[in-house]
Amino acid sequence: MSLTRCLLVRTEVKEFIKQCMLAVGTKASHASSLADVLVEGDLRDHYSHGLNHMDLYVKEIQAGICAKEGGPVVEKESVATALVNGKNLLGPVVGNYCMSLALKKAQEVGIGWVVAYGSNHYGIAGYYSMQALKKNMIGMCYTNSSPLVVPTRVHTGDPISVAAPAKDGDSFELDMATSAVALRKVELSARNGCSIPEGWGCDADGLPSSDPNAVLSGGGLVPVGGSETTGGYKGYGLALMVEVFCGILAGSRYSKYIRTWRKTDSKANLGQCFVALNPEFFADGFNDRMSDLLSIHRNLEPAVPEMPVMVPGDPERRHNQTCRELDGIPYSLSVVKHMNKVASTLGVTLLLPTHGLIQ
Amino acid sequence: MSLTRCLLVRTEVKEFIKQCMLAVGTKASHASSLADVLVEGDLRDHYSHGLNHMDLYVKEIQAGICAKEGGPVVEKESVATALVNGKNLLGPVVGNYCMSLALKKAQEVGIGWVVAYGSNHYGIAGYYSMQALKKNMIGMCYTNSSPLVVPTRVHTGDPISVAAPAKDGDSFELDMATSAVALRKVELSARNGCSIPEGWGCDADGLPSSDPNAVLSGGGLVPVGGSETTGGYKGYGLALMVEVFCGILAGSRYSKYIRTWRKTDSKANLGQCFVALNPEFFADGFNDRMSDLLSIHRNLEPAVPEMPVMVPGDPERRHNQTCRELDGIPYSLSVVKHMNKVASTLGVTLLLPTHGLIQ
Repeated sequence: MSLTRCLLVRTEVKEFIKQCMLAVGTKASHASSLADVLVEGDLRDHYSHGLNHMDLYVKEIQAGICAKEGGPVVEKESVATALVNGKNLLGPVVGNYCMSLALKKAQEVGIGWVVAYGSNHYGIAGYYSMQALKKNMIGMCYTNSSPLVVPTRVHTGDPISVAAPAKDGDSFELDMATSAVALRKVELSARNGCSIPEGWGCDADGLPSSDPNAVLSGGGLVPVGGSETTGGYKGYGLALMVEVFCGILAGSRYSKYIRTWRKTDSKANLGQCFVALNPEFFADGFNDRMSDLLSIHRNLEPAVPEMPVMVPGDPERRHNQTCRELDGIPYSLSVVKHMNKVASTLGVTLLLPTHGLIQ
Repeated sequence: MSLTRCLLVRTEVKEFIKQCMLAVGTKASHASSLADVLVEGDLRDHYSHGLNHMDLYVKEIQAGICAKEGGPVVEKESVATALVNGKNLLGPVVGNYCMSLALKKAQEVGIGWVVAYGSNHYGIAGYYSMQALKKNMIGMCYTNSSPLVVPTRVHTGDPISVAAPAKDGDSFELDMATSAVALRKVELSARNGCSIPEGWGCDADGLPSSDPNAVLSGGGLVPVGGSETTGGYKGYGLALMVEVFCGILAGSRYSKYIRTWRKTDSKANLGQCFVALNPEFFADGFNDRMSDLLSIHRNLEPAVPEMPVMVPGDPERRHNQTCRELDGIPYSLSVVKHMNKVASTLGVTLLLPTHGLIQ
């Protein structure tokens, strides 16, 4: 496989994803919501949760295991909390609904803690936590997902995402898997024919492996922290914490009951958690302190001069800036080819690298 | 130094700590609160946050930088949130107050998110999150602390603690530092004259070190996850998240503005965060699912037959059980000798290993 990259215009990728989803019968606003979060993933250099993932959503709608239309429903509610039935809609439809609800509650009483069941994959968790930034609030988002982390392989690399606003549009944006890396990074390596670094995953015998296909075929991901001595049990503990916030609170599927990754034989019924926290209900001067905290870190003398110290969100901002300068998003050609194959079966106009090949 | 251990009766250790604190003028109920949380740390095998740490609290009261009496004050409040002024009281006094307040709010509206400034070291974070278990709620607790984590050394190994109730008194109890290990584990190794494993800390030049004194003298702790490739930036990101929940929300000291570890020349003014979440406001059957989740993991076939798979809280429960069987808590003799030295300067009756030496 090739690592050649090509440049695609953001609006065209969005339209491509939307058209593919429409072709399988998805309601237009739902298709748009999905396109938005996937392209945002790519813009943030989280390619593993972007266009690369589109085929999964297409398949799930085609298989009839993900709803094409409708809306989430609140099943239980207080001024500060809600339990939402996601009605098996596309993850972004459920996510946008729940995050809006959490923000509304936080506006009124300082915090909104909303949990959903009956949801589906929703792209990058950071997309939802970052919605809080527009309201000058802290956002948090968690989801459970298909089990693929060793040693137990009954829990997942469930993500933790937290966004907090600083001054002048700056912000803290943590968006991390509780495995050493997200599964889709391994998938992307497999699709690109690359090996993976030691410490990401292991093979079916539980031995460390740099072959992404060994990790994907019976092997598994390693929790962040590595071995027992260096704190691997912490990544395991954090993944369980996320499962408590998601599947256990929501009453969705959880742990080993979640269907196997990329199997489309049953509904996912994922559990997700969306939190908004309003700094106005705490000490005055939140944004100033946030900006100062970010500055303290960014201004540290780096160990390697050409690698300045960054804060969570900076690498994503940098990639976003690169895309703006390039006037497009660089994609691996193999990913584009793969998605064009999907599109051709749907009768959707193919993606064409408008700026030609790069690198 | 010696690794010899001795057995002490729990109630006697509590009384010893209480008497030492009373001798420096602490209000009796405050001294008891501190003794409770420190001995609970020891019972849970978190010796680094127990009796071993008593001298710090004694010194802070002696130096007049920690208040001997008074009570925390709510400064801002909604039905679901509160900002508390800890009035520079002992950490456990502030912690117990805030956790009670969070639980009361969660009883009424499903969640209570309480943040305190003007606080001090409070022992193990898990002590506070676990108070939620008695009310069949989820508890969370975070604190900031003195900066000692590389590469930046302006943030800390700030802990994350989450407790969630299962059936029949069983529970999930995560209590972890966001550094690979807690600083006090390194201190304890130094006091016991032991080396530390690779991957815990580094020396003043930023190089990995197994000498606890090198880590303590100009070196620093390593964030959980290790290197960039294996997810070390995740531990860094989580530590910053804790700082956002604590110092930045609370308006306390934060990051590099927190006084140097074990310096008693100024007030600590730590920021802390206490959360209670009531499962009754979400899907029915929470306790059943929690028990099932814990069983799924505990019943997994272990990689090493004599090492069954555990869930967060199990190692602590096991140590607690051992103490019950021994009818006492095993302490390192060097720690007991050190604390007896402190007690002798205060005119407090010394601890005596009642069951003699062990191991």
